[in-house]
Amino acid sequence: MATGSSGSARRPRRRPPAITVLRVGHRPGRDPRLTTHLALAARALGAERMYLHPPDEAVAATLHGVVERWGGTFEVVGAPSWQRVLREHPGPVVHLTMYGLPLERLAPRLARERSLLVVVGGAKVPAPLYRAATYNVAVAHQPHSEVAALAVLLARLRGVPGPGAPAGARARIVPRAHGKKVVASAGGVGGRR
Amino acid sequence: MATGSSGSARRPRRRPPAITVLRVGHRPGRDPRLTTHLALAARALGAERMYLHPPDEAVAATLHGVVERWGGTFEVVGAPSWQRVLREHPGPVVHLTMYGLPLERLAPRLARERSLLVVVGGAKVPAPLYRAATYNVAVAHQPHSEVAALAVLLARLRGVPGPGAPAGARARIVPRAHGKKVVASAGGVGGRR
Repeated sequence: MATGSSGSARRPRRRPPAITVLRVGHRPGRDPRLTTHLALAARALGAERMYLHPPDEAVAATLHGVVERWGGTFEVVGAPSWQRVLREHPGPVVHLTMYGLPLERLAPRLARERSLLVVVGGAKVPAPLYRAATYNVAVAHQPHSEVAALAVLLARLRGVPGPGAPAGARARIVPRAHGKKVVASAGGVGGRR
Repeated sequence: MATGSSGSARRPRRRPPAITVLRVGHRPGRDPRLTTHLALAARALGAERMYLHPPDEAVAATLHGVVERWGGTFEVVGAPSWQRVLREHPGPVVHLTMYGLPLERLAPRLARERSLLVVVGGAKVPAPLYRAATYNVAVAHQPHSEVAALAVLLARLRGVPGPGAPAGARARIVPRAHGKKVVASAGGVGGRR
């Protein structure tokens, strides 16, 4: 609320907040591709984990396969109760909604947090979520895509990861102006599958 | 190619590039939601038009309805030939692919262009596209989502639009910390549908 007493003109460089995603309102059997895209974007842009309500083993398995090949520790965890995920999260809750306050206005404050839970709705968002959230954040005030909104938030708060594979990767992309190049990472088999 | 002879330390503020999107490899009947998300994100984050190959009237109609209510001039245009869209575009072609060069490296150059055609593939991308593109650009070098990649590119090159409705909107969101507020824009009927 208050702006604080310490000068902010020369702030030290901080670690970006750790980000956990909670997807609510998933419809197993109907949304698998969209929710898979959401999870893949969360992983690629630096989130640590995605809780999925209701749980869907198919999405969790797809991401497991991606992590086996491309590295890191990202996981999709089924959440029978979204309220419980909110209750147990130690930091602020950010709900992405086109009705919220502009990302550009809240981003400096969010960037100072250690750990954020970012909640992403589907077609139907439970009304209590708007009240339960610490921040309702809009990435543009227009109807669009939860995949897009999450990606822009992650890129804004954590930057876009450069080349280089996460720990445990069996494959690594070598960026090229034209064409594709994938090499085996240390300790793994390479090539395209 | 060359860096140019004029000093760039104090560059004048430019208009961001106009962006047209081309979606290739759409599978009508299978991808409608994903391609709709792509089109909605393109519109919300400032693209002017999306060409869709192959054409899909259902996606075009959905976006037409969104524009009627929320304003602007965005449209989805069916493209029987993606090669022709590339040929007729007057500016550079940016192909989004995890195998390309990092966005952060190319963004300053892309930001100086007047008009970009951003090509977004689906599951299968025709190989000639890698050669036909002026730039192959990666938003993180990991498998993720074309919706996420396009959104991050648009936010990076054009910024995230703030509150305020595009011309012709019948509804406008008033950002709120909690809850939802939609008002009628001038000349239209308001409220939620």
